[in-house]
Amino acid sequence: MAEISATPFLWPDRSPHPLSAEALASVDAWWRAANYLSVGQIYLLDNPLLRQPLTRDHIKPRLLGHWGTTPGLNFLYAHLNRAIQERSISTLYVTGPGHGGPGMVANAYLDGTYSEIYSGVDQSEQGVKALFRQFSFPGGIPSHASPETPGSIHEGGELGYALSHAYGAAFDNPDLLVAAVVGDGEAETGPLATSWHSNKFIDPLQDGVVLPILHLNGYKIANPTVLARIPEEELLDLMRGYGHKPYIVAGGFDGEDPLLVHQRMAETLDEVLNEIAAIKARALAGDTERPRWPMIILRTPKGWTCPPVIDGVQVVDSWRSHQVPLSNARDTEAHTRLLEEWLASYRPEELFDADGAPAAQVSALAPVGDLRMSANPVSNGGLLRRALKLPDFKKYGVEVPSPGATTDEATKVLGTWLADVIRDNPDNFRIFGPDETASNRLAPAVYAATDKQWNAEFHEGDTNLARAGRVMEMLSEHQCQGWLEGYLLTGRHGLFNCYEAFIHIVDSMFNQHAKWLKVTREIPWRRSISSLNYLLSSHVWRQDHNGFSHQDPGFIDHVVNKSADVVRVYLPFDANTLLATYNHCLRSVDYVNVVVAGKQPAPNWLTMDQAVAHCKRGLGIFDWAGTEKFGTSPDVVLAAAGEVPTLEVLAAAAILREWLPDLAVRVVNVVDLMRLQSEADHPHGLSDNEFDAIFTADKPIVFAYHGYPWLIHRLTYKRNGHGNLHARGYKENGTTTTPFDMVMLNDLDRYHLVMDVIDRVPGLGARAALLRQEMQDARLRARTYTRDHGEDIPAVTEWVWDADGVGVTPDNAGVSTGGDNV
Amino acid sequence: MAEISATPFLWPDRSPHPLSAEALASVDAWWRAANYLSVGQIYLLDNPLLRQPLTRDHIKPRLLGHWGTTPGLNFLYAHLNRAIQERSISTLYVTGPGHGGPGMVANAYLDGTYSEIYSGVDQSEQGVKALFRQFSFPGGIPSHASPETPGSIHEGGELGYALSHAYGAAFDNPDLLVAAVVGDGEAETGPLATSWHSNKFIDPLQDGVVLPILHLNGYKIANPTVLARIPEEELLDLMRGYGHKPYIVAGGFDGEDPLLVHQRMAETLDEVLNEIAAIKARALAGDTERPRWPMIILRTPKGWTCPPVIDGVQVVDSWRSHQVPLSNARDTEAHTRLLEEWLASYRPEELFDADGAPAAQVSALAPVGDLRMSANPVSNGGLLRRALKLPDFKKYGVEVPSPGATTDEATKVLGTWLADVIRDNPDNFRIFGPDETASNRLAPAVYAATDKQWNAEFHEGDTNLARAGRVMEMLSEHQCQGWLEGYLLTGRHGLFNCYEAFIHIVDSMFNQHAKWLKVTREIPWRRSISSLNYLLSSHVWRQDHNGFSHQDPGFIDHVVNKSADVVRVYLPFDANTLLATYNHCLRSVDYVNVVVAGKQPAPNWLTMDQAVAHCKRGLGIFDWAGTEKFGTSPDVVLAAAGEVPTLEVLAAAAILREWLPDLAVRVVNVVDLMRLQSEADHPHGLSDNEFDAIFTADKPIVFAYHGYPWLIHRLTYKRNGHGNLHARGYKENGTTTTPFDMVMLNDLDRYHLVMDVIDRVPGLGARAALLRQEMQDARLRARTYTRDHGEDIPAVTEWVWDADGVGVTPDNAGVSTGGDNV
Repeated sequence: MAEISATPFLWPDRSPHPLSAEALASVDAWWRAANYLSVGQIYLLDNPLLRQPLTRDHIKPRLLGHWGTTPGLNFLYAHLNRAIQERSISTLYVTGPGHGGPGMVANAYLDGTYSEIYSGVDQSEQGVKALFRQFSFPGGIPSHASPETPGSIHEGGELGYALSHAYGAAFDNPDLLVAAVVGDGEAETGPLATSWHSNKFIDPLQDGVVLPILHLNGYKIANPTVLARIPEEELLDLMRGYGHKPYIVAGGFDGEDPLLVHQRMAETLDEVLNEIAAIKARALAGDTERPRWPMIILRTPKGWTCPPVIDGVQVVDSWRSHQVPLSNARDTEAHTRLLEEWLASYRPEELFDADGAPAAQVSALAPVGDLRMSANPVSNGGLLRRALKLPDFKKYGVEVPSPGATTDEATKVLGTWLADVIRDNPDNFRIFGPDETASNRLAPAVYAATDKQWNAEFHEGDTNLARAGRVMEMLSEHQCQGWLEGYLLTGRHGLFNCYEAFIHIVDSMFNQHAKWLKVTREIPWRRSISSLNYLLSSHVWRQDHNGFSHQDPGFIDHVVNKSADVVRVYLPFDANTLLATYNHCLRSVDYVNVVVAGKQPAPNWLTMDQAVAHCKRGLGIFDWAGTEKFGTSPDVVLAAAGEVPTLEVLAAAAILREWLPDLAVRVVNVVDLMRLQSEADHPHGLSDNEFDAIFTADKPIVFAYHGYPWLIHRLTYKRNGHGNLHARGYKENGTTTTPFDMVMLNDLDRYHLVMDVIDRVPGLGARAALLRQEMQDARLRARTYTRDHGEDIPAVTEWVWDADGVGVTPDNAGVSTGGDNV
Repeated sequence: MAEISATPFLWPDRSPHPLSAEALASVDAWWRAANYLSVGQIYLLDNPLLRQPLTRDHIKPRLLGHWGTTPGLNFLYAHLNRAIQERSISTLYVTGPGHGGPGMVANAYLDGTYSEIYSGVDQSEQGVKALFRQFSFPGGIPSHASPETPGSIHEGGELGYALSHAYGAAFDNPDLLVAAVVGDGEAETGPLATSWHSNKFIDPLQDGVVLPILHLNGYKIANPTVLARIPEEELLDLMRGYGHKPYIVAGGFDGEDPLLVHQRMAETLDEVLNEIAAIKARALAGDTERPRWPMIILRTPKGWTCPPVIDGVQVVDSWRSHQVPLSNARDTEAHTRLLEEWLASYRPEELFDADGAPAAQVSALAPVGDLRMSANPVSNGGLLRRALKLPDFKKYGVEVPSPGATTDEATKVLGTWLADVIRDNPDNFRIFGPDETASNRLAPAVYAATDKQWNAEFHEGDTNLARAGRVMEMLSEHQCQGWLEGYLLTGRHGLFNCYEAFIHIVDSMFNQHAKWLKVTREIPWRRSISSLNYLLSSHVWRQDHNGFSHQDPGFIDHVVNKSADVVRVYLPFDANTLLATYNHCLRSVDYVNVVVAGKQPAPNWLTMDQAVAHCKRGLGIFDWAGTEKFGTSPDVVLAAAGEVPTLEVLAAAAILREWLPDLAVRVVNVVDLMRLQSEADHPHGLSDNEFDAIFTADKPIVFAYHGYPWLIHRLTYKRNGHGNLHARGYKENGTTTTPFDMVMLNDLDRYHLVMDVIDRVPGLGARAALLRQEMQDARLRARTYTRDHGEDIPAVTEWVWDADGVGVTPDNAGVSTGGDNV
């Protein structure tokens, strides 16, 4: 278990009281300055401090960006600054609302972080101008919070993940406060709606604190929000039902003086922070009851402080303030004037000094150094990342006296190593999964080393549940992915284990994370973070009893669409190759590693030394399985990528060796799928010469692949041998089968592979024709057997690779040896 | 608005009272029979009615399936039967828990539906044997509720969509009750967590009633569930916060007599149904307050009625009963005996008559005919589907005096037609979208015809919101997709409009629906349902201000992985082609149609007649844009698929025509992407001859494509011309730009296309070399301009197609005409 800090959150109690006049003025000045800078980013190209009368030439030709949510985000930032100053709380600010980008940038600029990172945007009038110009401008920054924004671990692109990210950041950061703003639009998304339940998975001792702030500004793009349009008591019930103690701060409507709202907010924030301190203290004193963590509902008008009515229609407190309230500011003189008044309403002359730097009253609110939310090192997790202490994975390997001589459940073996990874890294490595860690067989080993973290009720007889543990399970793939992302982005390590078919649930989350990784590669101050590692099991070839809806190997296709700099796909095919692969994944940074592996008992093919060498190459020739003569060219290449394809290719090779011993068969296995691509397209790609050396440039290639077969074509279409390549893989057939029956249904079976070879190698003669017939017969026998018996034919289930190079077919029930037939 | 039935749900009040002894016996007999048949499906190959002592040979060799959730589903089915009999309520039973398959099948068998549909599974001992054998058996049925299960619109594959589907079924079905069982595991998923809010979107007059039943059986695969481990008051708060009035039925723990639980359930169900009737009556009387619809929390032990303890460990009321409680029933004599006792505990001798048919006491509980939940026609929506009345889309077309002579927002034009579709089909067509219907510009026309349906609070100034309306908007793509699926599966029509990048959020839901469609094609009794239509706008080439996170055209790739029988992809490029495309989509059945279209002002290229002809062919040669001579072969093919690619290809063609008038350029446009595939791979696929006739077999093809370019290679890799094909499309570059700047960043611009042609057509000479240089210069000028001015260069924004066949470049600011330079 993680070492517990002695004094987490033991802030001196500060009874809620009104802000002093000075403090109030400072908070308000910050807020006005942030609002001013936000409006400026959206509209201005020049005249940044409004020191001349505003003209159309000062205004951007294309007005882009989002105002509506911004004043609320700025408001919270100002108040949190005040609290951080008083209490020195290390605070991360996560903002869910999608398009508060100008606000996040404005606050980072005001507290100095922005200029420290981007020297071209200094604290001067020219700096303000640069700040404005770059926003949503060609070559500049996006209109939402993005990797370029200091302090952010959370893009404003796709909504729904603010709380999951916040909790991911809080795990194992006992002294961290994560203020997580949830937009009321975002709150309607599914992932956000379930992420409130994260509070049953956080430990008050070991972990930090998430303070959710539901920002109820009432409107989305073109609609009211649901949570703003239910009775307040219903909303409070909902928050209580989610396990929180809700506090409401409301104000700013109908022109209410913001100073009054500041007082309300400050008082509530003090009360809430005191309560958090009390919860932490109770936990330290041994109280194990799940706390009802406080949360804040902030109800303010959307677009707060912009012109309330424009062209006769309501804009403030309406969806009309969502984006750019004055869309004709450049082309309509009346709107130019309105914009000028709007900007002037923040009294910029008070907010910036003669040089254009933030005035002292504003700057005074910024906390010092790393306490500035935009400078918090947890938001640039690579700064804090410590490499994992990884036990020597080779010691966990299984004995393989000869290929296929032993059988193991690959993920179960991996679990023994992961258990020690957990033991050696008690505070910065976690395993995430939607109730499938045991089903995917990382248990029992992993649960000998740790428990599942759980802070809901315990019942007698519960197993492997504890208030603190390294395994995080909730039946929401979104939650698992979001937690893990937050954990990685703040400098830690982990993996997500999931059923292969259901990982599509997080397709779009993967997209966002892959894009984040891609962009951060170009941002020098963003430090490398640990890779996002998937472990996909219960894979497509083992969905024999669940049925068609559990069959989909397409996540790989989805992943391969993303930048080659970022994505890696591995298909280890036995216990030792899985260990070698995962050892590599847990050491890597800045990638998304997709690993698909088997969990059912299956033959081990490679010794650990062989596995290490094979995985290092990423692909290779199984010379022990082929029949080519040294120094000559093979007649045909039988290639496999994936657990089941490897088995079938080897079984096919065994059949060919028995029947057609003079046929020079080369057996190739691909464990790193990206090796197939051209080196021009992917850093792992083989050169054409290397590719030809393995696959030949002119011989038939029969390729058995784990997923949809066209991916193999896509990855190899520039290769010399592509015209000779025949790929088999998963097809959408849809039925319930036994495992081998499913392989047959997809024509990925050994019999088809043998027939493929026969059909593609010219001049094989009569014996090959006989073998072809035998393959058809054997296939029919196998199919009939499953339908009669409900399990696969012994010829297949009992088939083992013969170390002498001959496949053994027990009882001759499957494939005739052919000896008597010719 | 839909016509309101005069007497929806006006059941006679039936004061809750204890069941009579006879009714109680009947409910209990049904429940025992359903449980017996469920256990039998999981375990038995033979001896179906336990009329001989059970031996290992009677037991399946592979034990697959899920017991845990099944007794609860059977319990509810029995009780709903009783209520349906008394009240004649048309009821659909939606079961969220993933693996209650054996239960659903058992109930359909008991009420006779199963045997009516599957004659091989009749109501006899042999029928029971067949029923048991097929379950999770090769060639049989999956272990979860699936399309093969009568009464189901809802697969048990992936969890999270029970309530969305239920509400989708209830819309515009004012007399329908949808009893929707939510598993407590499922309740942890994001989509389910937000779908409770559906109750703010249903109208008590126009729509039916959803009765959510949260089945709190406490455990998932290997964990307790969150909602079962919070204090009851917190759970009640949560349900109240979701806007429901919760009722709790709990029992069956520690061996409590089920008869007592039956009484409790019956009483609560009566009370709840009375309350629903009262709500309906109040609504009819004019009450417009949003009702707090009742919902039921059913708390029973997981695995209820199986052996409570096996091998010394707790099984009932534990995750251990999730799947197959007696996994060694065939191989361990003690377990065989335990299984026999378990089966016998249901007293099968009372439940089946001598022939093996359900005993009268059991059958007596089945409602009559279509009132049987498994026979409800809404669960086989094609039975009820009425074709849409579609106004003649051609009348809504825009004038196109010559290509590019007019400009329109394509989706806005589509909106004018959709408005009349809505007017003409007031009760069976809806538009779904996550707050983007206006942004995607179907407004304002659509809102002249209807409103957004909304039953949360109304505020003064709200626009286009009403208690009943044809547009459904909630900021959850899951919800939109789930509602639409439920609506389609029950026989209606609709479309889902969404931003292109964010449609990946429903990747896995699309998967499930596509699989459903594929399987139902093979099930004769399942009738055709309307296609699932996507309208994706705010597409990848128009994400200029949002930034990288909004850029992803990969949904098409995801879709194309699914069965060719089911998926269609269309890329209409102007207003008239979009109208023609959507007219086709709304007439079609059993497909998923993905349509990507522009919403920004863009040139119209085809007259309506041309658009109709072009869309009918799916692709074609723009002879007005090319320079080939009739009867000769072109030198090069410039092909486009998508709005922006079409524009760029035409601009490139114009430049080529000006500079290299002797070069025979063919311009091809593809609107139906599946036409590219081989006819062997897709029903829309061109024959090779047809393909060659359009693309040539040997000339260079420069293909500008909307999405990731490799899809074009994948679709065409078997074609003769594939070796000559060069595809350009979207690349993961990641920046903020103006529209054309983004096109340039991806090298899809006109200048690159011209250079591609020059690089691929041999022997073009000095003028081509000069043009190449000019293209590089023009490109640089355009790029510099955007960075200086924040908008695209006039040479591009003001470019128009010259009807005389020459591109006009205003002010010579963009591309020199070349006239003076050579």
